[in-house]
Amino acid sequence: MPFIDLNSDVGESFGNWKMGDDAAIFTSVSSANIACGFHAGDPSTIAQTCRDAVSANVTIGAHVGYRDLAGFGRRFLDCSATELADDVLYQLGALQALARSAGAEIKYVKPHGALYNTIVHHEAHAQAVIDAIKAFGTDLPVLLLPGSLALQKAEAAGLRGVAEAFADRNYNPDGTLVSRREANAVLHDAEVVAANMIRLATEGTIVAVDGTTITMPAESISLHGDTAGAVAMARAVRSGLESAGVQIRSFA
Amino acid sequence: MPFIDLNSDVGESFGNWKMGDDAAIFTSVSSANIACGFHAGDPSTIAQTCRDAVSANVTIGAHVGYRDLAGFGRRFLDCSATELADDVLYQLGALQALARSAGAEIKYVKPHGALYNTIVHHEAHAQAVIDAIKAFGTDLPVLLLPGSLALQKAEAAGLRGVAEAFADRNYNPDGTLVSRREANAVLHDAEVVAANMIRLATEGTIVAVDGTTITMPAESISLHGDTAGAVAMARAVRSGLESAGVQIRSFA
Amino acid sequence: MPFIDLNSDVGESFGNWKMGDDAAIFTSVSSANIACGFHAGDPSTIAQTCRDAVSANVTIGAHVGYRDLAGFGRRFLDCSATELADDVLYQLGALQALARSAGAEIKYVKPHGALYNTIVHHEAHAQAVIDAIKAFGTDLPVLLLPGSLALQKAEAAGLRGVAEAFADRNYNPDGTLVSRREANAVLHDAEVVAANMIRLATEGTIVAVDGTTITMPAESISLHGDTAGAVAMARAVRSGLESAGVQIRSFA
Amino acid sequence: MPFIDLNSDVGESFGNWKMGDDAAIFTSVSSANIACGFHAGDPSTIAQTCRDAVSANVTIGAHVGYRDLAGFGRRFLDCSATELADDVLYQLGALQALARSAGAEIKYVKPHGALYNTIVHHEAHAQAVIDAIKAFGTDLPVLLLPGSLALQKAEAAGLRGVAEAFADRNYNPDGTLVSRREANAVLHDAEVVAANMIRLATEGTIVAVDGTTITMPAESISLHGDTAGAVAMARAVRSGLESAGVQIRSFA
Repeated sequence: MPFIDLNSDVGESFGNWKMGDDAAIFTSVSSANIACGFHAGDPSTIAQTCRDAVSANVTIGAHVGYRDLAGFGRRFLDCSATELADDVLYQLGALQALARSAGAEIKYVKPHGALYNTIVHHEAHAQAVIDAIKAFGTDLPVLLLPGSLALQKAEAAGLRGVAEAFADRNYNPDGTLVSRREANAVLHDAEVVAANMIRLATEGTIVAVDGTTITMPAESISLHGDTAGAVAMARAVRSGLESAGVQIRSFA
Repeated sequence: MPFIDLNSDVGESFGNWKMGDDAAIFTSVSSANIACGFHAGDPSTIAQTCRDAVSANVTIGAHVGYRDLAGFGRRFLDCSATELADDVLYQLGALQALARSAGAEIKYVKPHGALYNTIVHHEAHAQAVIDAIKAFGTDLPVLLLPGSLALQKAEAAGLRGVAEAFADRNYNPDGTLVSRREANAVLHDAEVVAANMIRLATEGTIVAVDGTTITMPAESISLHGDTAGAVAMARAVRSGLESAGVQIRSFA
Repeated sequence: MPFIDLNSDVGESFGNWKMGDDAAIFTSVSSANIACGFHAGDPSTIAQTCRDAVSANVTIGAHVGYRDLAGFGRRFLDCSATELADDVLYQLGALQALARSAGAEIKYVKPHGALYNTIVHHEAHAQAVIDAIKAFGTDLPVLLLPGSLALQKAEAAGLRGVAEAFADRNYNPDGTLVSRREANAVLHDAEVVAANMIRLATEGTIVAVDGTTITMPAESISLHGDTAGAVAMARAVRSGLESAGVQIRSFA
Repeated sequence: MPFIDLNSDVGESFGNWKMGDDAAIFTSVSSANIACGFHAGDPSTIAQTCRDAVSANVTIGAHVGYRDLAGFGRRFLDCSATELADDVLYQLGALQALARSAGAEIKYVKPHGALYNTIVHHEAHAQAVIDAIKAFGTDLPVLLLPGSLALQKAEAAGLRGVAEAFADRNYNPDGTLVSRREANAVLHDAEVVAANMIRLATEGTIVAVDGTTITMPAESISLHGDTAGAVAMARAVRSGLESAGVQIRSFA
């Protein structure tokens, strides 16, 4: 029986500011990337999100980011490798305490936003993230962009690198994402997206923007939860996968 | 052979701002209250401080505080009990990850500044701190003011409450501190302070401001490290205790 | 022709976190309390809100608060009077620059959240807010709770204190608000609220919770904009007042 | 009679963390770059620094930076041009209110740290800083690196760009600074530095690292105040200039 993981970002509220429909997302995913307080997520939000993940039987991942609440971690910050590694380790420890208090453990790491994109190519920051995960001591798997420098460094360090696909994005024939500057970067039709993800989970392929079928060795699918449309698409993807006989389960 | 613990605040730098002579303090104390990032201490400062504590063979405590960098945790913040408990648990986890990365563990908790003073009497905040320590799971001892509400709550929760004395403060006959509003609140003569602390460690007593000798069941002595004079006094206290045959060792 | 001011909080988004339907509120009010960055509002949010206020021909007020993003300014912070006065002056200047860039000026001040409530009775903080407004130099009017200590201090300092009523709150016969701990603290029926506000604007009275009619010398009415229901109620109040021949205009 | 401006960074303390010997620096400089709260400087520090500048008869400049307290504004932050312009305008307004309260006005702008270095070449950020200064409305002069893109943009926008020299840095024959990666980047001999600055002020030239004499059209000299050595060097430069008959005065 084929299987795949579905992951989404949760716990991104901050104080009185609410973001995302986490309750809805928890019914669709197998893995929850929980914000750790540096780009989003205050301690009480994180604590509640951990309890909700446990209730929903969803695996907890640490969504670590640059220290930038005002920019939601979406702005590259040129910190030193030491600062970044220590910032990541601090976030992992903070989330772990709140996860354990909810009866769970961090099972993987997914870098967030600008950090995720930066370590596709940035030598020092990629190494810093991997160093922090190693320093944390439990050799957590790390969810990353296929082909990224950080994925290579994870594996070189003896960590399991887990490649993910993006449900709502178009791909170039070389397996890279169609740039968001292009009109057709993002897919909006939930049925098309669901069909794509069934093909990914059952055949390990994606149909690229030019119609060619390409190999996509992703073990997880990234879904969004920050708009009503995104939540509906997440449901459609899960439902489509289940109807096609694909089991939804954590990679961890 | 009599023994006592000496504790001091360290790791209170933040980014480019340096505070305290931690290197000097590490030669005088047996316990280091390490800031956890909410009132002071950025992750790289904390990480380095943990490594320095390990090198100096000093026990690590979590110096948890209100979320208030601008006020250095010295201003009461009327947060909810839930917010406070989650903030404390977040700080404990963050420090634990950095301590473990340095080859150590948190061995106790000492609330900082306004939080320390507030939980002498504030029911909800006292309980929140104790709840957070319980939720952390390792039943850490907690260093507190003798007679404080938090000390009672710690013991009611099955935690070890550790009372401390303040080396450079005058005491009232009822065992409370002479208010800082009084001219004679603070002691400045290192020899007098050292003599007081020898009496405390060997006889369990303090001579109060009115000359009466009172019982002071403190297991630790709080020293400062934020001025040159404070560092010199810390050295004088340690040296005096050692000369009097008192062993300096962690209570943990 | 009778007239009254309608005010509401706007500009309370922060970075990627959105709050309130400011566009809708701008169609209902004559005065906009714009967050200044200490409890809510990043500079770009504030700048855009100022431009929107100018477009909507709505008067700009400075919604100053305690330095507490994580608590949205709703938690008392025991800062010194000097710290508070300087924090308020800093916020006034920051908002003024962004307002001027939009072609407007700050026309009044309204303290936010915990600060608003604290200076009903807190001597030092009430004086600090008034001192900051005086130091700003343009003797801005200040919107406050009727009967508050800050209102007295404003007038003693030669500032115009403007009392406001709360559209959706029940009042005790002595003119104070029914506590939020009581079941009937908040009014939910837009028609009732509109009728109350028409009476306030035309007769200067409110019917208290016990049925007695009391004098309420409010020059402004505080409306909410943070929920769909609140926006609808704001519209109902404005529409009701206009139908009753009451002119909606800024007090400034 | 020849003349030149001496500028230095002040007001860089934050809460309980102190930085720099501002009192000493105020006796040496004619222009004070005052931190505005985004990389350093809390409102009370800024307010006190403005009063001290007024007492010392020193001109106030706005030392605007990226929003990054943890990094002291020394880390590039990839914010949007709009975010940066609004952040700068917010800082200008905040400082202006505190300066006016002290009886002064901002007379110029000097970008800080990573922002200063970034706008030597970064098109969007350079324009954003200039746009913010224009939006502030008083067409403040802006202190920048000679040859920087921001200097060109300042002049294109009708602002006065003021070039500065660095007292303690070696220069390449093309007028650029010897990189800090080189052993001889920084000059440590106060007499040599003073002699260089006298030549600059009287002849408009600098002797580059290879011994050639180059033109350096600087109207201001940047001095440091963050170490005891820096303060001594600042004094030596001022004293040397005065002995050589050079008048020290603000360029503004």
